[in-house]
Amino acid sequence: MKKGRVTIPTDESYVEGTKKIAALWGADAVRDCDGTKLPANARDLAEKVYETYFVTRGDVAWANSHPEELQHFFLMSERKTATGTELKVYPTEGYYAEQVKPDYSAESLRYWQVYDRTAGKEHAQWSVDKKEGCVLVENAKPYHEYTLAFLAHNVWDSTQMYNYITNGWNTDKHSPYDPRYPKTAEHIKESLKNWLQTHPQINVVRFTTFLYHFFLVFNENGKEKIVDWFGYNASVSPRALDDFAAEYGYKLTAEDFVDEGYYNSPHRVPKKRFLDYMDFTMRYVAKTVKELVEIVHGCGREAMMFLGDSWIGTEPYGKYFENIGLDAVVGSVGGGVTVRMLSDMPGLKYVEGRMLPYFFPDTFFEGNEENAVAELEKNWMTARRAMMRSTIDRIGFGGYLSLAAKFPKFVKRAGEICEEFRVIYEGVKGKKPYNSVKAAVLNGWGKLRSWQCFMTAHELWYQQAYSYQGILESLSGLPVEVSFINFDDVKAGALDSFDALINAGDAYTAWSGGENWLDEEVQEKVRAFVARGGGLIGVGEPTACAKNGRFFQLADVLGVDEEKGLSLNTDKYNVQETKGHFILENMPEPDYGEDKKNIYALAGAQVLKIRYSSRYQRNVNVGEVKVAVNDFGKGRSFYITGLPYSFENARLLYRALLWVCRKEEYVEKMFSTEPSVDCHYYAESGQYALVNNTRSEKETIFFDSAGNARKQKLQPMEICWIQEE
Amino acid sequence: MKKGRVTIPTDESYVEGTKKIAALWGADAVRDCDGTKLPANARDLAEKVYETYFVTRGDVAWANSHPEELQHFFLMSERKTATGTELKVYPTEGYYAEQVKPDYSAESLRYWQVYDRTAGKEHAQWSVDKKEGCVLVENAKPYHEYTLAFLAHNVWDSTQMYNYITNGWNTDKHSPYDPRYPKTAEHIKESLKNWLQTHPQINVVRFTTFLYHFFLVFNENGKEKIVDWFGYNASVSPRALDDFAAEYGYKLTAEDFVDEGYYNSPHRVPKKRFLDYMDFTMRYVAKTVKELVEIVHGCGREAMMFLGDSWIGTEPYGKYFENIGLDAVVGSVGGGVTVRMLSDMPGLKYVEGRMLPYFFPDTFFEGNEENAVAELEKNWMTARRAMMRSTIDRIGFGGYLSLAAKFPKFVKRAGEICEEFRVIYEGVKGKKPYNSVKAAVLNGWGKLRSWQCFMTAHELWYQQAYSYQGILESLSGLPVEVSFINFDDVKAGALDSFDALINAGDAYTAWSGGENWLDEEVQEKVRAFVARGGGLIGVGEPTACAKNGRFFQLADVLGVDEEKGLSLNTDKYNVQETKGHFILENMPEPDYGEDKKNIYALAGAQVLKIRYSSRYQRNVNVGEVKVAVNDFGKGRSFYITGLPYSFENARLLYRALLWVCRKEEYVEKMFSTEPSVDCHYYAESGQYALVNNTRSEKETIFFDSAGNARKQKLQPMEICWIQEE
Repeated sequence: MKKGRVTIPTDESYVEGTKKIAALWGADAVRDCDGTKLPANARDLAEKVYETYFVTRGDVAWANSHPEELQHFFLMSERKTATGTELKVYPTEGYYAEQVKPDYSAESLRYWQVYDRTAGKEHAQWSVDKKEGCVLVENAKPYHEYTLAFLAHNVWDSTQMYNYITNGWNTDKHSPYDPRYPKTAEHIKESLKNWLQTHPQINVVRFTTFLYHFFLVFNENGKEKIVDWFGYNASVSPRALDDFAAEYGYKLTAEDFVDEGYYNSPHRVPKKRFLDYMDFTMRYVAKTVKELVEIVHGCGREAMMFLGDSWIGTEPYGKYFENIGLDAVVGSVGGGVTVRMLSDMPGLKYVEGRMLPYFFPDTFFEGNEENAVAELEKNWMTARRAMMRSTIDRIGFGGYLSLAAKFPKFVKRAGEICEEFRVIYEGVKGKKPYNSVKAAVLNGWGKLRSWQCFMTAHELWYQQAYSYQGILESLSGLPVEVSFINFDDVKAGALDSFDALINAGDAYTAWSGGENWLDEEVQEKVRAFVARGGGLIGVGEPTACAKNGRFFQLADVLGVDEEKGLSLNTDKYNVQETKGHFILENMPEPDYGEDKKNIYALAGAQVLKIRYSSRYQRNVNVGEVKVAVNDFGKGRSFYITGLPYSFENARLLYRALLWVCRKEEYVEKMFSTEPSVDCHYYAESGQYALVNNTRSEKETIFFDSAGNARKQKLQPMEICWIQEE
Repeated sequence: MKKGRVTIPTDESYVEGTKKIAALWGADAVRDCDGTKLPANARDLAEKVYETYFVTRGDVAWANSHPEELQHFFLMSERKTATGTELKVYPTEGYYAEQVKPDYSAESLRYWQVYDRTAGKEHAQWSVDKKEGCVLVENAKPYHEYTLAFLAHNVWDSTQMYNYITNGWNTDKHSPYDPRYPKTAEHIKESLKNWLQTHPQINVVRFTTFLYHFFLVFNENGKEKIVDWFGYNASVSPRALDDFAAEYGYKLTAEDFVDEGYYNSPHRVPKKRFLDYMDFTMRYVAKTVKELVEIVHGCGREAMMFLGDSWIGTEPYGKYFENIGLDAVVGSVGGGVTVRMLSDMPGLKYVEGRMLPYFFPDTFFEGNEENAVAELEKNWMTARRAMMRSTIDRIGFGGYLSLAAKFPKFVKRAGEICEEFRVIYEGVKGKKPYNSVKAAVLNGWGKLRSWQCFMTAHELWYQQAYSYQGILESLSGLPVEVSFINFDDVKAGALDSFDALINAGDAYTAWSGGENWLDEEVQEKVRAFVARGGGLIGVGEPTACAKNGRFFQLADVLGVDEEKGLSLNTDKYNVQETKGHFILENMPEPDYGEDKKNIYALAGAQVLKIRYSSRYQRNVNVGEVKVAVNDFGKGRSFYITGLPYSFENARLLYRALLWVCRKEEYVEKMFSTEPSVDCHYYAESGQYALVNNTRSEKETIFFDSAGNARKQKLQPMEICWIQEE
């Protein structure tokens, strides 16, 4: 057995147990966790000792003595309908009183804003009644809706609050303080220096917070009200707004933040002013964090960022991230997408994935060992699939190790997984696997949100997202080089580098692209790309933006459009191809997930899958298209209404990519015929890896790079490494 | 048995048979049909003799000798993508060559237009190559889409063409001629005068065409390409356009007609310029037809309009219709909606419904008698339901009577139906049934399209329409006074007259209302209406138009909105009410038809029906709302995702109307508890009618106007008349 690349949690009360499991799993790092304390002799347990560090919270005394330097967010009140010409709006209505404290200071009030939401205009006449805690809207128009956007102090760190409410904990509340303010700016550096001096045994500072938490605010019942893992809203302050105005020469308003109540969710097509603010914040955070990292390095320690709570401004795919000089990032792993989000990050010494399950009593209770093992297997299998393409450098676990230790089967299986991870690392790291296709995912965010498309609350499942998220989960383990580009990239000529372009999402979201598709240059460039021989994959409502007689702006390329009820006067002759198609060969019925209705084919397109209304009354031509392909110039397109993740859908996507790129020969090159068995080829080492992604035995036909085929049996979950002859 | 109010077809070869059936059915009118000729002694057969008359087609010699006076339509070419800077567009591509003949005259070419559909702008540089039959677009932008909108002669009447293609007929083609041109204007009057003189036996002139056919054009395979029963596109001509410009002081363009390819379908929110053109055309047609009607009256005959093919400009709910002075309208009856479309028409002596089945060989072939009877029963039962609220004055049949005569059961049943119709007429005509609710259907068209909402091709079923059409079908037989209003009516104060307002349809259609909902005054008026105690019923995507943070502009009133994927960051707590609700009492699960996804409830709304994703992974709060109610001020609202017609859905709508209007007591007044049994009350005659709308025996509890209840059994299809004590 090899050793290393594994982090385990430890606890001052579980030193001997830690040693045993460290040996069994080959762990070379220990960490603390929420509710545990590292033992004093932690360095005896492992080479690396991580400890959680909070930059902008945790120092309760500081927070209490500097209330004017606490962090802010912009919040929008409930929408209130005026019935007369006066209207009272209570900013805190609907919010959790222990989290949200309106900032009535003069500095803050300058930025408050009342909006007439019916007219879509700012409403200038209002006054504040601090005592009653409300804003009086004057000269209102009856039966118009009004909102107040206000700056509030976030007096309880959202993650701490969540844990406290969920687990019923009861200690000091952490109020985050803001280094935009001068005393705090100094304080966070001094605190870190002190901490490093008083924690000599720690050689990896695990920054669980940097400066600002993602946007997470609770409702009056202490339940989640708004959650946006990408939300910059809690990084704002009157100070930041003033600095911004000074630098950019224009003033941001409350409306730029509350954004009609959408709060610039990542699903919104990003707007210039908000992008400016993001850039402004990223620069500020990177600069500030860099100073902290330099302090850490100055003491000879490593700086690790937790990609989780307070990561706003340090987006790893942002422009300023590499310059921070971090050594490592650790993030939780829920599947292939989260692996790639970590493993593709640039400029780090290493990245670590925190695997599931977390060693908490909700899973590790008596009698639940089988479930704990099953969760471990499932997590590992989905993560492993992506590691075969681009591996992370370390894995780790969190929680109470003593709980896990009570489950011997779990301990054994986790040890095997640690070992398999090290084998994968050896086989994959630094040896670029062969990619048959270069594909770009095109959306409003591009590179900044690599592997982060369609997400709201990190890994949480959303009904509106999974049918698109499946595309990324599929790609995470496919022999496809994946890039993420935005519409500016398209205009700058980025398409020249790719074989295929993928556009997916609901209409008017950042993912599909919304009004970006009305940009003539974008349309010209994408059409030219396909006409010259490029491939276009559309899922859901690609290129959608109702205008000029089309819903899908590139309906001519895709061969399909969506009937929005306006052109029922034009007959739709959707007839399914009967002669079969390369893409669907030996494939089961696709899973469309949430699906789209009312898709119809244009003349010339080939309809591969159609569905008829169960109420069909008219004629066979009214079926709805589910899958279609089209030729456009020398290029090709593929359309499907949705693509949730499954082995079969991943395979379908791969076949579609090969077809649109005219690379059909790759279904007999470096290929496994069984969809649940992946085939990877590492040219540098001359190795193939066949990966059984299931817990059953599988048989597949394996094609090598020369097209030679042979039958191959795989044990449950087996990775079969084959050396090229 | 009574006699009268019934029209039957006849044929010169079936005189004796006609007499027999006329006696059996009590027919007092005979008519000719496509492919039949009236006998010379038709007046011996019946009091009324109808004959089909074509105003603007049928005179082949005239059409051939006046090619410059043939009718036009504006067509849009296929969308063509430029790959270089020049592009050829062939106007006839995709059209049926025997119908569409581009008009290359100088008068016509002035109105042709090339559009850059990618830029959404007219493109000025183009030239015509008459010889090749194409337009050369010059200085095109590569990878932009272009279209040509052109005037073409409609050289084959769409209905004649349809019948000829469908039935393989082969006689002279009818090219419609246009009375906008002076010779034809004179000719149609002279022809009518001659015809009246040579047809003395005809006392009802059945105008099967007036001037212009609805828009119906065929594709290159001779199949329907575009059909719009309301389309004004075939009423256009260079002459009409010139006249319009002279009168209105601005010039209409081709784009005003082809409308990005939507051709101003009734589903489009109507635009001012197009409404101007419609008004201009209605005035012209009414004036011209009035002259024809006066000629008919001058000869002592009646003028009847067929509401079917060439009815453009004589919309019965239009401003100028009554002034034409028509005696009668006849139209086909497919169900309750078409009955009400006819029976509610203003200013006529009588209206007649042509019942189904048509006596054609497709139904009347050997061995198909049971099906013919079943079709008759079904048609009668659905039509009858609406007649009980507002009856038409006559019914009739079409086709070859000799075919029907071969089916004795059919002849017998049709005779019973004729008799039942006369009983209904006696019971209902002139005796307004009691309405418990005054409701207005609000959409972009209002009164003009009374009982014609959601339609594309008259009675044809459309997948995108039936879930809304069901509202009208329900209303056609309910104790509800129904009005149709548009957004101008709302602004003019129309809401004061109603208890409830219904807004239904897909987002951005004329039915839902689209951008009309951004009109502040509309929002103010509707909110005020509900706040004062009015009821709002929303179906599908009511008040939808994405803006100012809402998709449903009146989400605050409706209590629901639609998640369009932009506000996933805001948690939706949709929890179904468990304690039951008046609206759903004793009701089965509603049928939502095409349904809507992603509807969520606002705080305060009551969710009556919810559905969870079968893939649900997160928590129970993510269900989709299907039915919800809300309080707003003193008023109430009801929302449902779709409402196709069924007895149960009709009942659901009635209960919802009663609830939103706070008239719940009407479920125990003039009411039948069994949903398939309607209860009508005619205060004037003191009669109740209980109508069994099924072919099974039914039992119901009948409540009279005082609330007295009793059990009542009904035979299959029975109408039970009960005299008030």
